Amino acid sequence: MKIAILGYGTVGKGLVDLIDNNKEKRNIKIQSILVRDKNKYKESKYAHLITDNIEDVFNKEFDILVELIGGLHPAYEYIKRALEDKINVVTANKDMLAEYGDKLVTIAKENHVSLRFEASVGGGIPVIKPLTESLEGNIIHNMYAILNGTTNFILSKMYDEGLSYEEVLKEAQQLGFAEANPEADVEGYDAARKLSILSTLAYDRRVYWKDFYLEGISKIDMKDIHYAKKMGCKIKLVGQSKLDDKKVSGFVRPVLVDNNSLLSRVDNEYNIVVFNGDSVGEVSFVGKGAGKEATGSSVYSDVIDIFDNRLCNIDSFTKEKIKVEKIIRNNCQALLRFKSPKTEEILEFINTYVDSYDIVDSNDDELVIMVYVNSEYKINNILRLIKDEGYCKESKKLLKIS
Amino acid sequence: MKIAILGYGTVGKGLVDLIDNNKEKRNIKIQSILVRDKNKYKESKYAHLITDNIEDVFNKEFDILVELIGGLHPAYEYIKRALEDKINVVTANKDMLAEYGDKLVTIAKENHVSLRFEASVGGGIPVIKPLTESLEGNIIHNMYAILNGTTNFILSKMYDEGLSYEEVLKEAQQLGFAEANPEADVEGYDAARKLSILSTLAYDRRVYWKDFYLEGISKIDMKDIHYAKKMGCKIKLVGQSKLDDKKVSGFVRPVLVDNNSLLSRVDNEYNIVVFNGDSVGEVSFVGKGAGKEATGSSVYSDVIDIFDNRLCNIDSFTKEKIKVEKIIRNNCQALLRFKSPKTEEILEFINTYVDSYDIVDSNDDELVIMVYVNSEYKINNILRLIKDEGYCKESKKLLKIS
Repeated sequence: MKIAILGYGTVGKGLVDLIDNNKEKRNIKIQSILVRDKNKYKESKYAHLITDNIEDVFNKEFDILVELIGGLHPAYEYIKRALEDKINVVTANKDMLAEYGDKLVTIAKENHVSLRFEASVGGGIPVIKPLTESLEGNIIHNMYAILNGTTNFILSKMYDEGLSYEEVLKEAQQLGFAEANPEADVEGYDAARKLSILSTLAYDRRVYWKDFYLEGISKIDMKDIHYAKKMGCKIKLVGQSKLDDKKVSGFVRPVLVDNNSLLSRVDNEYNIVVFNGDSVGEVSFVGKGAGKEATGSSVYSDVIDIFDNRLCNIDSFTKEKIKVEKIIRNNCQALLRFKSPKTEEILEFINTYVDSYDIVDSNDDELVIMVYVNSEYKINNILRLIKDEGYCKESKKLLKIS
Repeated sequence: MKIAILGYGTVGKGLVDLIDNNKEKRNIKIQSILVRDKNKYKESKYAHLITDNIEDVFNKEFDILVELIGGLHPAYEYIKRALEDKINVVTANKDMLAEYGDKLVTIAKENHVSLRFEASVGGGIPVIKPLTESLEGNIIHNMYAILNGTTNFILSKMYDEGLSYEEVLKEAQQLGFAEANPEADVEGYDAARKLSILSTLAYDRRVYWKDFYLEGISKIDMKDIHYAKKMGCKIKLVGQSKLDDKKVSGFVRPVLVDNNSLLSRVDNEYNIVVFNGDSVGEVSFVGKGAGKEATGSSVYSDVIDIFDNRLCNIDSFTKEKIKVEKIIRNNCQALLRFKSPKTEEILEFINTYVDSYDIVDSNDDELVIMVYVNSEYKINNILRLIKDEGYCKESKKLLKIS
């Protein structure tokens, strides 16, 4: 089996190591490795394979294109070209699948080749294959997940070490765990793209990532962490989606998770994905969500599946796009923080409109309440009323999931 | 695709439901269902397929035999006959795989058919396929797992409700969670069989279940639970195995697990399997370890893999049997309980021989110590010395894993 690798960053190197480690078991020949500037790799063991010209790659014969350059372009064009040349493709590129998954799956189908993407979600955790193959018989009702290592690292540090968001982000950037422009991570875009891939596969309808309710972690402050601790919870950036009566709803947002939950035990760079199937019940997958070796392991497994001719009939990406509800329409809890001296007036509103509530804290600075309602709409309406009445300009809401 | 099902208990019914639910997607025709007494099923929707004569099964044409009768015989003979007839086999029978996996895999290979057994370990949790396919590139260094739902249910109840082992076992038997003869569960045999299947696959050497160190949960008393709580731990029946320098070691035994660990969050009928791979790091799989629908989901996925012609080259069962060490040769902690008035003499021994220790409790009734050592041998030697000196006849040891 001959492969070409586009991109020789951490994941690319992880893949090459795995091919090397397993060479007695699997005869995989690397034909070429595409990089941006080949002069940087003159001393590499693989210098003879390295090129910065895509034509060098396509001029050689190969069976699998492994795309690890990331981003939308030119990755899309390279993958499209390979598929049209009837070459199988393995990619870790969640941005591209979230955006062009429908087009690429269609091209792959037309050309009777495989497009595999285990590494696009959950790094080293086997999750796409278990979902699409092992759980095939199930109707997946819902899923929830921690899908972004950078934000999980930041939230874990804030919780464990009492540091502010800004301090931890800076440290994460220095350590290379967060990018110079961290927007895609901290605003939840990366997690939403991954959640859209899983939701598309699980519900067999095209779910577009921008249709989820999206809220990042940049507004989480030390007081949120304080109240979370007080209530026996952690704060996690969670992606959740649901299939209800043929409608999909979903969000990526920071939420409170109980210390007794599995989610609360998934810290730092670790990810978790939980599927709820009608037969299997709740199954959870936990592991490293990123990193050279971990993600390399998933890419390698896709290559091996093609090597062993194990085909998988995923065409959910080509299905019609479905409308996504942004709101939780069933029982939910939320922590509300009001910066206002008018605590009595606010409490009267709360008392009138919510099903039940607990006062978590009430001091000169703010009023903190846990409310229990049968729909998130109710909370939003109360907050709007309280604002309209002029009782509190600035309120904060943090859902608790269970 | 035509299948024959042997056994129509909970899992068999779960499988039939799944085939029925998915009939528009997958054309799977049930040819026959073997039961012990067909008169019991006269009112069944599937009465026309039900037989109590194995020859009726083999007289029809079919592509897959699904064996769900359990036990060693005649399950072994039926599977062997099917494989020799070049019929693929799917089984959930861990007892048989643990005992005759080598013979059956050899027969399957000789006849170029599949023998699949996802449901044999972890009920509905996808674990065999992720291990053998998704993690193929990895060297698995070690694994640990909660593999038996009955004992996890008993230990959870003891912990949560303060009931004794005997009380909870009785309740579990009444609820049908434990068998009338609970030996295979409570003595750890069932968990050891499953651990041997996973270890065989992960280390690519035949690991025999009786070679593990085995200790059941029947001696766990309320004081153990009390001390576990005091130290921020739970007690779980854990199977662990390791590959070190081409040697395998392993055990199934009750151990202390820290409340911060994933394991401590896996209660009641839930199972967890954690693999540690050289590339992927730690990956964990959590879900229902038993039950009609959950286990049916795994059996169904095996049927679909054969349907889709996704082959898997597992021949680890045919490898040479490897010697299994029963002892933990690296750093470990253990809780020791001494029923003896000679606390000073015992403490002097402990002081002399262990690397470090904490006194957890010391009262008229007993002395309870947490010791930290670099090998379990050390603990065993100290306990023997203390016994030989006549300081304490009855001591109790509970490892803590981290």
